[in-house]
Amino acid sequence: MGALSDLFGPERVAVVGATDREGSVGRAILTNLQADFDGGVVPINPNRDAVLGLDCYESLADAPPVDLAVVVVPPGIVVDAVREAGEEGVDDVVVITAGFSETGSEGAARERELIEVAEEYDMNLVGPNSIGIMSTTSGLNATFGPENALEGSISFMSQSGAFITAVLDWANDQDLGFKDIVSLGNEAVLDETDFIREWGDDPETDVIIGYLEGIDHGREFIDTAREVSEDTPIVLVKSGRTEAGAQAASSHTGTIAGSEQAYEAGLDQAGVLRVNTVEEMFDYAQMLSGQPVPERDDVAVITNAGGPGVMTTDAIGDSRLGLADFSNETLETYGEMLPDEGNIYNPVDVLGDAPAERFREALEISLEDDGVGAAIIVAAPTAVLDFEELADIVADVRDEYDAPIVTALMGGESTEEAAEVLEDSGVPNYFDPARAVRSVGALSEYRDVSRRDHEAPADFDVDRERAREILERAEDRDDNRLGVEAMELLDAYGVPTPEGDVVDSPKAAESVAEGIDGPVVMKIVSPDILHKSDIGGVKVGVETEDVYDAYEDLVTRAHNYQPDASITGVQVQEMADLDAGTETIVGLNRDPQFGPMVLFGLGGIFVEVLEDTTVKIAPISEPEATEMIDDIQAAPLLRGARGRTPADLDAVVETLQRLSQLATDFPAILELDVNPLVAGPDGVQAIDLRLTVDTEEL
Amino acid sequence: MGALSDLFGPERVAVVGATDREGSVGRAILTNLQADFDGGVVPINPNRDAVLGLDCYESLADAPPVDLAVVVVPPGIVVDAVREAGEEGVDDVVVITAGFSETGSEGAARERELIEVAEEYDMNLVGPNSIGIMSTTSGLNATFGPENALEGSISFMSQSGAFITAVLDWANDQDLGFKDIVSLGNEAVLDETDFIREWGDDPETDVIIGYLEGIDHGREFIDTAREVSEDTPIVLVKSGRTEAGAQAASSHTGTIAGSEQAYEAGLDQAGVLRVNTVEEMFDYAQMLSGQPVPERDDVAVITNAGGPGVMTTDAIGDSRLGLADFSNETLETYGEMLPDEGNIYNPVDVLGDAPAERFREALEISLEDDGVGAAIIVAAPTAVLDFEELADIVADVRDEYDAPIVTALMGGESTEEAAEVLEDSGVPNYFDPARAVRSVGALSEYRDVSRRDHEAPADFDVDRERAREILERAEDRDDNRLGVEAMELLDAYGVPTPEGDVVDSPKAAESVAEGIDGPVVMKIVSPDILHKSDIGGVKVGVETEDVYDAYEDLVTRAHNYQPDASITGVQVQEMADLDAGTETIVGLNRDPQFGPMVLFGLGGIFVEVLEDTTVKIAPISEPEATEMIDDIQAAPLLRGARGRTPADLDAVVETLQRLSQLATDFPAILELDVNPLVAGPDGVQAIDLRLTVDTEEL
Repeated sequence: MGALSDLFGPERVAVVGATDREGSVGRAILTNLQADFDGGVVPINPNRDAVLGLDCYESLADAPPVDLAVVVVPPGIVVDAVREAGEEGVDDVVVITAGFSETGSEGAARERELIEVAEEYDMNLVGPNSIGIMSTTSGLNATFGPENALEGSISFMSQSGAFITAVLDWANDQDLGFKDIVSLGNEAVLDETDFIREWGDDPETDVIIGYLEGIDHGREFIDTAREVSEDTPIVLVKSGRTEAGAQAASSHTGTIAGSEQAYEAGLDQAGVLRVNTVEEMFDYAQMLSGQPVPERDDVAVITNAGGPGVMTTDAIGDSRLGLADFSNETLETYGEMLPDEGNIYNPVDVLGDAPAERFREALEISLEDDGVGAAIIVAAPTAVLDFEELADIVADVRDEYDAPIVTALMGGESTEEAAEVLEDSGVPNYFDPARAVRSVGALSEYRDVSRRDHEAPADFDVDRERAREILERAEDRDDNRLGVEAMELLDAYGVPTPEGDVVDSPKAAESVAEGIDGPVVMKIVSPDILHKSDIGGVKVGVETEDVYDAYEDLVTRAHNYQPDASITGVQVQEMADLDAGTETIVGLNRDPQFGPMVLFGLGGIFVEVLEDTTVKIAPISEPEATEMIDDIQAAPLLRGARGRTPADLDAVVETLQRLSQLATDFPAILELDVNPLVAGPDGVQAIDLRLTVDTEEL
Repeated sequence: MGALSDLFGPERVAVVGATDREGSVGRAILTNLQADFDGGVVPINPNRDAVLGLDCYESLADAPPVDLAVVVVPPGIVVDAVREAGEEGVDDVVVITAGFSETGSEGAARERELIEVAEEYDMNLVGPNSIGIMSTTSGLNATFGPENALEGSISFMSQSGAFITAVLDWANDQDLGFKDIVSLGNEAVLDETDFIREWGDDPETDVIIGYLEGIDHGREFIDTAREVSEDTPIVLVKSGRTEAGAQAASSHTGTIAGSEQAYEAGLDQAGVLRVNTVEEMFDYAQMLSGQPVPERDDVAVITNAGGPGVMTTDAIGDSRLGLADFSNETLETYGEMLPDEGNIYNPVDVLGDAPAERFREALEISLEDDGVGAAIIVAAPTAVLDFEELADIVADVRDEYDAPIVTALMGGESTEEAAEVLEDSGVPNYFDPARAVRSVGALSEYRDVSRRDHEAPADFDVDRERAREILERAEDRDDNRLGVEAMELLDAYGVPTPEGDVVDSPKAAESVAEGIDGPVVMKIVSPDILHKSDIGGVKVGVETEDVYDAYEDLVTRAHNYQPDASITGVQVQEMADLDAGTETIVGLNRDPQFGPMVLFGLGGIFVEVLEDTTVKIAPISEPEATEMIDDIQAAPLLRGARGRTPADLDAVVETLQRLSQLATDFPAILELDVNPLVAGPDGVQAIDLRLTVDTEEL
């Protein structure tokens, strides 16, 4: 596939299935294309000589050459139409027609054929079941929607066509413009990742926004979005967040949504700014396309109204931002400038009798302070304040300083003209100060995302062959599950485990115990016995001289409990000093969209009752592993809260990375739990293990 | 003080300090009063014969009798002016003039004089430092603001004048009307509670809204608001929620804000619906003034757009609401009615080709289902959907059914006329489906608040005299602190404590131990030694024969550790079976605004690391005590999660109430901690105690 720039900027477009029948999709698209498009438009329809005043051709072969074919023929002949486009060398195709994978097995088969044809001719294909694409640069509107977009620098993709129609109708009302728009449809060929890549390279796109219900090829998405987001912010609604929403999404699109936890992790690791509403999406987009990112999160608030100033401060308290602490110099300057009753501390109260000029002075003083990263003006209507004058001032000051400035002009009609001035000069203005704060927060969030250190995951020196051998043992098991007898797997990947071994005779047990200092723990090992403790299958603190008898006793108990259980043997293990550390859990599993994931949490109630866990998509880098520790609520316990000895966090971070490497190396591992991994002051130790292997994948 | 109805509906109003000087507050008020007011307006000014065409009087004594005096004279003569009003029998006064407690000690003294005069004449006084009051019923606008309010059924109070000006400007733009508005100013006499009481009795007020930064007389507020909220919803912004916000509020109004935790509890117990933004406040108010409350929280969503349907479902998943599960009958009816590709399950997809009539059918089917409590229509623009027709249909259907219906017409200009139709028929409409969901959530929240069982707090039979005697012991202490030696206090209030006593000789210790089955716990008791364990001041599992020596050893250690420590004695206590229960914490403290508060949480890391605690204002009723258990995240542990034996929750609930009674009975208790209170399967036991007493209050 070539770059997608020709898709949005073709010289000549064919509408395959063009017609002038009233109310038809073919007519709507042709009409939209005729409206503003710079290039040529060619209707294709064997049954017409002309359509809407344009010469109509029987087929693409008869027509002058085109770069983009928009296909609206009935579903049964779409594949043929696309093949013909391929034959004629058309690289870019948009299939509007519905009736493919969204409708059942027959449609799905049709979609597979479509994919084959597209691959054969190496085509960029949008859809099927798309409402089309737009690009305001060339005036291209190849959709059957009722509205054309205004020009702008936001590019917009959506898996829901109705969402595009609704947003366009609303955005036109709000004077919000776009660069490119694409209705992704069924994503038979091109998907969200392709457009993120394209728009990341597009100098005319300042911000990428989108509505998604699912993401295919999660890893590719993460890698692409991560790179693009260094220069171009990506703001997405990913719906189906809640259980009910996911169900609704799956009945709507027929896709399996994957777990919200995986999406949350994946979108975050991808550097995507995730939002939940249309308002947020556009507040973010507007802010990110027009304002510099703040170098600090410390905000100055300048207001003529005490109450709204307090509300703004609350909103800042709720956000990732903080109120700036002014320097002594700033405070002095404010002291000289403001009337006595004014407040020189942040939020700065310029008082109800402040004319616009007093706002200018106050704003400039705050922006001169190196400790201020952004400024928010909060103004209530008063007898002396001219909102338009204030807007002009803010526009002026904004040009002088390299910090974001946002306004909350708190009024209705009286602020309208000022709002237009602000809009023209790219200063976002809201009635609600909380929205102004949220928008500055978006800039700060993007600053951090764009400057992330994308360190490559470490490549530890591990014994992959030995790991494979251990995993292959699962083939002998009905349920492909392994337990403590596979502890060596951890050892092969450099995760510390207690000394010991799984043995199958009392003599062997004794000899393992002799090699271990002090008493040992002995556990029955059987794929058929899941809850060892319940049947007395665990003995703690066994002295070497008692090991022989203990072995026999464990086996007898197991047999008594479950006569047909297959006994692998008995694990003889060094006593772990659990008191010296905190029990943590590290898990691996596999998401249908994002692949391997690493889970981390504290053991016991933290996982089971408080659900205090975090996941990331593997492979994870060292900074990502470190973040996982910060992500859990109970992290202070690992850091030494309540007089505990702090755990060796470096060892935890390393273990997370080593297990991430294991998950990436062996897609065959479907699930794996190290529970507990004891994190003590001098390192970690994996005490117990369970995993499930897909032996076909080995 | 009489009722406040005369304040908002006077026959004749005097403006004391009326003037025609351009730009003056006196002129602005007189002009506003002349505009729409039904009654008479009398300017008072000794230096004028007439003002703005009205006869002007030298003083109230010379003027015809008035019911309301609006005072705008300079601060120095306000008290005299108000006294004169009192002499003349004027019951209602609004003091606009600023320069009182908000400006320092001189102003504060002036405010105290003002209060005395108001009390002397039993006057209803608003302000000082108020922008005035409005009432649309009589056309009264006794403010100096630039805008008059539209008529409506929402009454609105604010501690910030600028907030009123801003909101009015905006509300007029949005066609939102009001019944009464009051700028509370410094609340020298009348405060928020007085207006809640007044509007609760006012048949023309459907909803009370307000902006507050602080609440005085918290208990009175709770009792009043609780009663009013049974019939009239109260929606408040209480700002200063965050630490920074509270600081900003206190520098703005000079009031001490009290703790956010106390406000959160107090507002909740008062039945107030708390919101954070102006948008939320009006969304709530609009919804609550026009829609019935839903009998169930199960919502039907009817949409022509899959994507927006999923977003709506997500918003429902985030809220207190749920998606309704349709009955089989409903599903069948949908099956017959909808095209094959439609979705008969909730959210109902009537498809992109649905005309307005199909929405009507779908809406009616859902409302016929007894399992549906409310309906949300989510409609994207399509070629076949006429938004205005849809609006008419929704208005129709709404009249037939007693369930709330809300719409999200997702478009801009194309929805404008439809939006007006909906507004006129009282159906809230939003672009964003999440806002529609939030509004239905407001109704559900209010339904629960208005139907709360306001059970009176239980009155347990306690030994108050004995409790007082124990508290009086604190008088002998420098720091007024008591510890385990005051355990009897708990006993006097019926909270179970381990057997045992505090003794001051080894012999006495022995005799206490002899009366206790099994080994005992011994702890040094000294007001000077806070961390007993650190100095080896606790001995666990002491057999009776070792008690004598243990006593001497404990005292020796204490002396060695801190030679000047005053030793009260040694506590000899039955061994509590901590394994049998879960450690909880019950605390009491005192908020400057709300008075006594009860705190509950699980012990150890739950309080110290996870901060998983909840508070309520005392006294608490049984349902409130039960709620406290539900409020903590770790509640499942008490209920028997992870194979624990469930704790005796009734005993915990009773203990919370008994300690609430203790806090209410003894305002002298500043702080008290029972930590731990062990909650086991057969009851609770208080193991340790610390309290601080304000002996002046005893």
